[in-house]
Amino acid sequence: MRTLNGKNLAAAIRAQAEAEATAGPQPRLAVVAATADEASLWYVRSIAKAAAGVGIACDVVDLGADADAGQIGATLSRLSSDPQVHGVMLQTPLPAGASAQQLAAAIDPRKDVDGANPLSLGRLAAGLPAFPPATAAAVLALLDHYEVELEGRRAVVVGRSTVVGKPLAHLLLDRHATVTVAHSRTRDLASVTSTADVLVAAAGRAGLIGAAHVAPGAVVIDVGTNPTEDGGLTGDVDFEAVSGVAGALTPAPGGVGPVTTALLLRHTARAANLP
Amino acid sequence: MRTLNGKNLAAAIRAQAEAEATAGPQPRLAVVAATADEASLWYVRSIAKAAAGVGIACDVVDLGADADAGQIGATLSRLSSDPQVHGVMLQTPLPAGASAQQLAAAIDPRKDVDGANPLSLGRLAAGLPAFPPATAAAVLALLDHYEVELEGRRAVVVGRSTVVGKPLAHLLLDRHATVTVAHSRTRDLASVTSTADVLVAAAGRAGLIGAAHVAPGAVVIDVGTNPTEDGGLTGDVDFEAVSGVAGALTPAPGGVGPVTTALLLRHTARAANLP
Repeated sequence: MRTLNGKNLAAAIRAQAEAEATAGPQPRLAVVAATADEASLWYVRSIAKAAAGVGIACDVVDLGADADAGQIGATLSRLSSDPQVHGVMLQTPLPAGASAQQLAAAIDPRKDVDGANPLSLGRLAAGLPAFPPATAAAVLALLDHYEVELEGRRAVVVGRSTVVGKPLAHLLLDRHATVTVAHSRTRDLASVTSTADVLVAAAGRAGLIGAAHVAPGAVVIDVGTNPTEDGGLTGDVDFEAVSGVAGALTPAPGGVGPVTTALLLRHTARAANLP
Repeated sequence: MRTLNGKNLAAAIRAQAEAEATAGPQPRLAVVAATADEASLWYVRSIAKAAAGVGIACDVVDLGADADAGQIGATLSRLSSDPQVHGVMLQTPLPAGASAQQLAAAIDPRKDVDGANPLSLGRLAAGLPAFPPATAAAVLALLDHYEVELEGRRAVVVGRSTVVGKPLAHLLLDRHATVTVAHSRTRDLASVTSTADVLVAAAGRAGLIGAAHVAPGAVVIDVGTNPTEDGGLTGDVDFEAVSGVAGALTPAPGGVGPVTTALLLRHTARAANLP
């Protein structure tokens, strides 16, 4: 079985981002957070650090866990109209009563480097230029990097979030895969997932995908980042069990995650260079 | 086998549209056409006639087959900002060089009664209020009218257009079906479609779906409207062959079509009543 490590690909994408970032005026990414969730804030700091590493300025706008939807929306609007800011990202989770879907509509689509604005999703679905969510784009980037054929093949995505499952379905359709979206209400999940040539687990449930869910030789991409009791992260795929069946499998962490962050930076560099 | 006729449902929806249309100021729908295609112009006239029947004014803005993208876009923008117009629809086909996806972005989402603006598709996918394309909405309306259960069941949509296949996939996902989108590049189509509890044919190929494509007892919805040699229309489903296998099947014409037109009118009445 091949292990589809994301680290080398991430390094290559970061190098592209750095080349694009240093070719013109310095790109600037603004990440808006309104949470006390430690894992989320850790991720925001890791983005800022990675940005610095490739010559992208990153402002973390921490509104605190008590911010309301009005404040968050006003902040996104202000950043969207600030000519010094090239990329705007809204970190989740958000306080109760604040909807990421609704608020993300305030992000200028040209600065929507994490594809959160519903207009970006619609443009993606319609085949028009748009930034896809970095996580969905990372899955495609990994499949391409490891030369996994998609045209005419059966892809099953487990999870229907607007951040991963839905945009990824459109990206896979655009590459001429036959695409199934399964989710928590799917009956007999294993019978659905075992039809997949390419299986993407993005449900947010640790260990959801076991050996019985995977066809022999299938390519399995694990998008899950579930907290473990000892403070670490684990994927949606039972790595040990599935590695005995799959033809190829991403580690989690170390697969989709680093590619996601690298793509977010490349999107920001591209946003800064949009005509 | 049950025949899922659309005529009674269409009449009920038209009655709702009429009640909503006559409750306030008269709603006005503008249909922009730029084609010499006879079937398309016939359809536009049938919309205008149906609108008149429920108390909705309908302006057909025929730009002719020589119109360019600039003219079409300017017309859509003008109608979008005209307070006398409540619904705006762009009829296809368009002249070469004019992209319906790109042009539809000029339609105000609040007047986008046929869900053509990519923002409407994105909002639909994100679970936010939006008008779905009338054809996609008609499939759901038929399934609901005939009390076809969707939650946890397997739905297969053949066709990945932004007008039917893609928005319908989101509508079905929203109803908790497990959804597969197949298309012209799908390998062994019958093996995919025969897993469906609910099969929707929206590929635009006459007779594409035969008995071998359908599981015994499945519900089959035929969205196809393919011209026949004798000047009529026929669906994507071989009605006679499939009626021996399916549990329920729409006629085409007479199934999805009348419901689509009725929903377009109801959307227009609702657009006129938006706060």
